[in-house]
Amino acid sequence: MLKYGDKVLIYLEDGSEYIITLEEGKFLGTHFGNIFHEDIVGKEYGDSISLRKHSAYILNIGIVDHIFSLKRKTQIVYPKDMGFILLMLDVKNGDLVVECGSGSGSMTSALARAVAPDGRVVSYERREEFHKLAKENVECFGHSENVVFKLKDISEGIDESNVNAFFLDVPEPVPHLKTVSNSLIGGGRFCVVCPTANQVQDVLRELRRLPVIKVEIWETFIRKMKLNPERFRPEDRMVGHTTYMVFGIKVNEGGVRYEENR
Amino acid sequence: MLKYGDKVLIYLEDGSEYIITLEEGKFLGTHFGNIFHEDIVGKEYGDSISLRKHSAYILNIGIVDHIFSLKRKTQIVYPKDMGFILLMLDVKNGDLVVECGSGSGSMTSALARAVAPDGRVVSYERREEFHKLAKENVECFGHSENVVFKLKDISEGIDESNVNAFFLDVPEPVPHLKTVSNSLIGGGRFCVVCPTANQVQDVLRELRRLPVIKVEIWETFIRKMKLNPERFRPEDRMVGHTTYMVFGIKVNEGGVRYEENR
Amino acid sequence: MLKYGDKVLIYLEDGSEYIITLEEGKFLGTHFGNIFHEDIVGKEYGDSISLRKHSAYILNIGIVDHIFSLKRKTQIVYPKDMGFILLMLDVKNGDLVVECGSGSGSMTSALARAVAPDGRVVSYERREEFHKLAKENVECFGHSENVVFKLKDISEGIDESNVNAFFLDVPEPVPHLKTVSNSLIGGGRFCVVCPTANQVQDVLRELRRLPVIKVEIWETFIRKMKLNPERFRPEDRMVGHTTYMVFGIKVNEGGVRYEENR
Amino acid sequence: MLKYGDKVLIYLEDGSEYIITLEEGKFLGTHFGNIFHEDIVGKEYGDSISLRKHSAYILNIGIVDHIFSLKRKTQIVYPKDMGFILLMLDVKNGDLVVECGSGSGSMTSALARAVAPDGRVVSYERREEFHKLAKENVECFGHSENVVFKLKDISEGIDESNVNAFFLDVPEPVPHLKTVSNSLIGGGRFCVVCPTANQVQDVLRELRRLPVIKVEIWETFIRKMKLNPERFRPEDRMVGHTTYMVFGIKVNEGGVRYEENR
Repeated sequence: MLKYGDKVLIYLEDGSEYIITLEEGKFLGTHFGNIFHEDIVGKEYGDSISLRKHSAYILNIGIVDHIFSLKRKTQIVYPKDMGFILLMLDVKNGDLVVECGSGSGSMTSALARAVAPDGRVVSYERREEFHKLAKENVECFGHSENVVFKLKDISEGIDESNVNAFFLDVPEPVPHLKTVSNSLIGGGRFCVVCPTANQVQDVLRELRRLPVIKVEIWETFIRKMKLNPERFRPEDRMVGHTTYMVFGIKVNEGGVRYEENR
Repeated sequence: MLKYGDKVLIYLEDGSEYIITLEEGKFLGTHFGNIFHEDIVGKEYGDSISLRKHSAYILNIGIVDHIFSLKRKTQIVYPKDMGFILLMLDVKNGDLVVECGSGSGSMTSALARAVAPDGRVVSYERREEFHKLAKENVECFGHSENVVFKLKDISEGIDESNVNAFFLDVPEPVPHLKTVSNSLIGGGRFCVVCPTANQVQDVLRELRRLPVIKVEIWETFIRKMKLNPERFRPEDRMVGHTTYMVFGIKVNEGGVRYEENR
Repeated sequence: MLKYGDKVLIYLEDGSEYIITLEEGKFLGTHFGNIFHEDIVGKEYGDSISLRKHSAYILNIGIVDHIFSLKRKTQIVYPKDMGFILLMLDVKNGDLVVECGSGSGSMTSALARAVAPDGRVVSYERREEFHKLAKENVECFGHSENVVFKLKDISEGIDESNVNAFFLDVPEPVPHLKTVSNSLIGGGRFCVVCPTANQVQDVLRELRRLPVIKVEIWETFIRKMKLNPERFRPEDRMVGHTTYMVFGIKVNEGGVRYEENR
Repeated sequence: MLKYGDKVLIYLEDGSEYIITLEEGKFLGTHFGNIFHEDIVGKEYGDSISLRKHSAYILNIGIVDHIFSLKRKTQIVYPKDMGFILLMLDVKNGDLVVECGSGSGSMTSALARAVAPDGRVVSYERREEFHKLAKENVECFGHSENVVFKLKDISEGIDESNVNAFFLDVPEPVPHLKTVSNSLIGGGRFCVVCPTANQVQDVLRELRRLPVIKVEIWETFIRKMKLNPERFRPEDRMVGHTTYMVFGIKVNEGGVRYEENR
């Protein structure tokens, strides 16, 4: 039963969405009419509110809704990439995961949920405004008990070792790859986010010098279909590019000179 | 420290991979030479074994490795889709998730890991051979304590209610959509896997009659890049299609007539 | 040497483009300054005009420029599809090609150029406003001597026979497929434009009854890359869908029941 | 009416295809039975031959059939790219087009057809075996009267000037870009085929120094759909990459520093 202080997603029949925190005496103004918070209190998720001619549905906030509603100052990791990254990094309950940088906290939230309840995400960020923003956004999502935020430039190294997975999403990844490989446990997995081909090329050159194997580079596409079953077809526009993703696994010595394999 | 009975992934320098269970007196024959299980015992993940001219790396089995190594009798859900589905279904520790059918158990494994340690996946399958196979595959992956397998045709209905997420992957989804919507809690999310456009069309027509909103249909593509930084380019071939995915959210009454929105 | 009456493409340094016909005493107002037609007269293609701080380049109008500049009242055939269609239809100098409908004349222009100088395109259209528009647009492009426009509903049949290629782009293609197959010469090729999956499905069902073989269905995607060599990457957005294209070849009797082959 | 010496495409009901030249006393052995050339003589395109249980269809050889049947020693330009290139290069009857290198002659054939009957393609190649092969393949296709083949390394410059379109498809494009721009007429268009990102990056850097504008880089994808209307869906596999294509237009002086625009 919903009460003041709860966060809900309001979904209107035309697809508009709003995320609100229920507060006494407040209302949400929409083009379909005003929704008074007191009318939501006492309802359950999935219930609706009648507006003049329309209904407003009250929903729990899913992780994808959360990501798209984030206050953000950086490019976020999109769900099309995020789900694949979580699988490739093999993150799970109990893992120790390091992320750098925190950015707007969208990947932090996803990693935190994946390692909960027993694991921990350590999220480094060197710019104070992002550090604060990510913290705020993760608190809003609700797994902050599984995250340690550190305001620190990782080029000085990091405090953690035997890390299970490392997610590196910084403007200049190459100088940090050695830190990634040093901090990972044997068999630990990493992902480097590279929006440009140049970054991937540089990362590949640097990885040759490090004890890593099973290097793979992927890009994903996702296409939405329209909803009319009598005129079934894709949407006219789609996202063309978010990022390339470089994956690999840390080994204790050696490392495969991958460019010779393929 | 690895011991007999442990499962490991063996990775050779040319990209070949083998999944084995360590047993006394056994060896793995490869084109780079034989690997004796007793030489692996006592090592750590990330260590390597020297073969004549090459190294063999010893790794933990990630979920993606597991999926591709499954004994399978059905089309599996691919990682490109799986990660996105887990996000869209918003599954997390503690959730009650229903899957139908069990298939080869690849999605069961992924769902089980996502709801662990406190949640539960109930996986229905009406064909005995798949029921057994999925069970075996999930046991091998290691989250069977979070899964209840039921050998049952869900057209007779299911035992669970207030389900947080429902994953429907059956040859004929339409007759089961009412069961999906009945068993979900308000705000609960579902995904219907539809390899063909005809199935999507039929699912869309049926969903019009049910209390569901926020219906979305997606397909994903994923493209691997080659590893030579001096000749950076995509692989020549890629997967063209796995499935369309229909998502939606259960509401307690009403439901958006989505075709009017878009 | 350019003279009054000529059509030119004006290209500004920021990528803006304008198509104009040179007229005495006129000027083109742009955000980089005014361009006086009399300053263009006497120049050659590839020359430039100095504006205050920028240059304006004078170019011939390519077919792709023409297509995107068309006055249009219909969805046009996009270059990504158009080039492929011309190849698959195997159109060449001397061919007799039938098109229905004329639409905005973009495909008519492309077909006319392909069959010029010795061939002919017959372009049917039943709606007078499109008939006029297509005529006007093709005249502007400059191959109208190779096109016969007919204002006629082809459900009453068409006048041509032994047609080399048939391009069918109408809202309801199924009722016209028999006309397509009847009018084609043995070995003649056709393309049916189907924006929706439902249309493709219906077309496939109807084609089973007709003497056609080598049926193929394709969709194309095209992605633009950004131009900075130090940050090489795709554009953020791309076209997600224009149309499915159904191709086939007319035979004199029989016909392959294609669905049994694949 | 077909006669000895004619080239035909034989199409069997299972989708197998054969290209043959009709010769007295010969037969084509297929898994559906033998097809005697004398039975084809006197028939028309679109006619069929009865084999034991199947039909064989006799077709004219389209340009796409021709491309895929070429004897080749190089990567060919695929139809998905070829059609788009022809449009972007704006080639038409009467044009002077230069191609380098000749490769296996697939693009030569397409360009020759596009400029026929009044235009000319000059195709340079420095390796004798490709020079011969391309010549042979274009003769087989039938537009050799519109092509001049030159066995020559274009790094010494080329003989032509005022070229309407230049198609550059060589292993190392950068050293030849100045030749491309020198030989083009003002407003003339070029396409550089670059299989790797590194080549595109290098080409972009070099183009900054040349009088060219409207630089665009594209890649295309094409996906085939299966033919069963009751189970409509894409094929499982598709081509992931052929090449990036860099386009631009020659101007008489200046040139846009494109990277500043985007």
